[in-house]
Amino acid sequence: MTTKVFGHKAPDTDSTGSPIAWAWYLREVKGIDAKPCLLGQPNTEALFVISHWGLETPEIISDVAEGDKVVIVDTNNPAELPASINSADIVQIIDHHKLTGGLETKGPIDITMRPLACTATILYDLMGEDIAKAPKGVKGAMLSCILSDTLEFRSPTTTDHDRAVCDALAADLGVDIGDLAAKMFEAKSDVSAFSDAELLRMDSKEYAVEGTKFRVSVLETTAPKMVLDRKASLMASMADVAKEDGVDQVLLFVVDILNEEATMLIPNDLVKTVAEKSFDANVEGDTVVLPGVMSRKKQIIPALKL
Amino acid sequence: MTTKVFGHKAPDTDSTGSPIAWAWYLREVKGIDAKPCLLGQPNTEALFVISHWGLETPEIISDVAEGDKVVIVDTNNPAELPASINSADIVQIIDHHKLTGGLETKGPIDITMRPLACTATILYDLMGEDIAKAPKGVKGAMLSCILSDTLEFRSPTTTDHDRAVCDALAADLGVDIGDLAAKMFEAKSDVSAFSDAELLRMDSKEYAVEGTKFRVSVLETTAPKMVLDRKASLMASMADVAKEDGVDQVLLFVVDILNEEATMLIPNDLVKTVAEKSFDANVEGDTVVLPGVMSRKKQIIPALKL
Repeated sequence: MTTKVFGHKAPDTDSTGSPIAWAWYLREVKGIDAKPCLLGQPNTEALFVISHWGLETPEIISDVAEGDKVVIVDTNNPAELPASINSADIVQIIDHHKLTGGLETKGPIDITMRPLACTATILYDLMGEDIAKAPKGVKGAMLSCILSDTLEFRSPTTTDHDRAVCDALAADLGVDIGDLAAKMFEAKSDVSAFSDAELLRMDSKEYAVEGTKFRVSVLETTAPKMVLDRKASLMASMADVAKEDGVDQVLLFVVDILNEEATMLIPNDLVKTVAEKSFDANVEGDTVVLPGVMSRKKQIIPALKL
Repeated sequence: MTTKVFGHKAPDTDSTGSPIAWAWYLREVKGIDAKPCLLGQPNTEALFVISHWGLETPEIISDVAEGDKVVIVDTNNPAELPASINSADIVQIIDHHKLTGGLETKGPIDITMRPLACTATILYDLMGEDIAKAPKGVKGAMLSCILSDTLEFRSPTTTDHDRAVCDALAADLGVDIGDLAAKMFEAKSDVSAFSDAELLRMDSKEYAVEGTKFRVSVLETTAPKMVLDRKASLMASMADVAKEDGVDQVLLFVVDILNEEATMLIPNDLVKTVAEKSFDANVEGDTVVLPGVMSRKKQIIPALKL
């Protein structure tokens, strides 16, 4: 049986590149029949990374069957995984997020979670000297994952170790990090093809504060104006998305990668209160700029108050 | 703040020795203020191991306080951990059991779970070359953990890697494995001081089959007669223990370490049915011998049927 290796739904670069890299390792180094899969259409940055490194686009799957052998990377949250995940035979989990609870396995399995910025950094450590055997595309995918998750080392989630692994991969490949990151961020910033609802769901995690359920959405971009020009229709779309997804409110943070700040949309008084209490912000009008805010994991979720 | 390192409630050798070994590593190698703790009185084998290697008995704690820094080894099951565990600051989990679900962390943490027989084997791998710095007592505790969890390599949970690590530690310490294991198992087999209810709860995990809740208890011993001579009062005690602990039935497997078989007590028709359906056993009378059955994790829990 082929082992399916996948990341989270709404795949970003790390949830696209890490399955490709780990399936290569399992197949070519460990001799395990494995293939990467995607739980949805990859985002524009991930599509650029696939194309840039000449990789094959993994098959998109919508669910898993009972007894399927699966390896999960870049998440351990059942809400971000196929509906039938707990009936699959989960053989390994490699992740860098908080332990969510909810995943169960039938027997002891192999789990490696580290507080690093990127799954690919953990994969690099697990591969050890075998990374030398990896083809250029696999190394390139891993390099791109780290640049994406660290926003080229600007995100406060970045550790010295993520940076060292990224530098080692770039040196090995002879890649100019600034040049590659600029191309990746440009690809991610081209959101013209997406509807408002798609943008609100593109990079989004649910989080509850005192019983109020939020969909906390982030758009990382080098062209914030492109998104903010659509703020009126984005705010109008929030209520529909919240209703359809069973949450109370959508929060949207437009992260300006180059200027290292986030602009939060303020559609109503609830969100205004959240902005003021969580970020000590002085809100006037329908947006507020939060200097230095780049990371949902480190700066937004832990700060959220009502 | 001192980081508390502990294993599961009703500590056996692995849940006693592994906290001692890992707290040593965190403190002396990593420079982290850490100490081992116990979630209850260690069993007689663990007490022998502490005494044999001249170790200090860790403090017994009954709960953790909000914000306490804790490292969990040898379990990830909230039912086997202090009531307030999810309000503590869990910084690391090292385990070799199935992923249970239920533990949550506030941020990304360090988790290493491997399908090996013993936590101490994982600790050895994580320590790398630093194991050379460990005092005799720490190496001895780790060696004892592996001998205990593998029943001196007799348990089917034993992997080649557990055995190799155990052999390396024994060679380093100049220890005769057979001699040490015999002393440990003799200590574990002396159950004369325990009440029936204590014996039924000594090494026990809850497990549900089609809605029926079992307390699956195991007694590993080199002197099965000592336990089986008490079978009438043990069976009489099962109903009380089940009621007090909120389960439907206690199952007791007396594992004969040297003869590599388990004797299951058959107090009623429900348990008779379980024995027949799960182990294809031909039950006559109030006990049944299950040849080759040594491991709850590998052979008992996965087989249980109603």
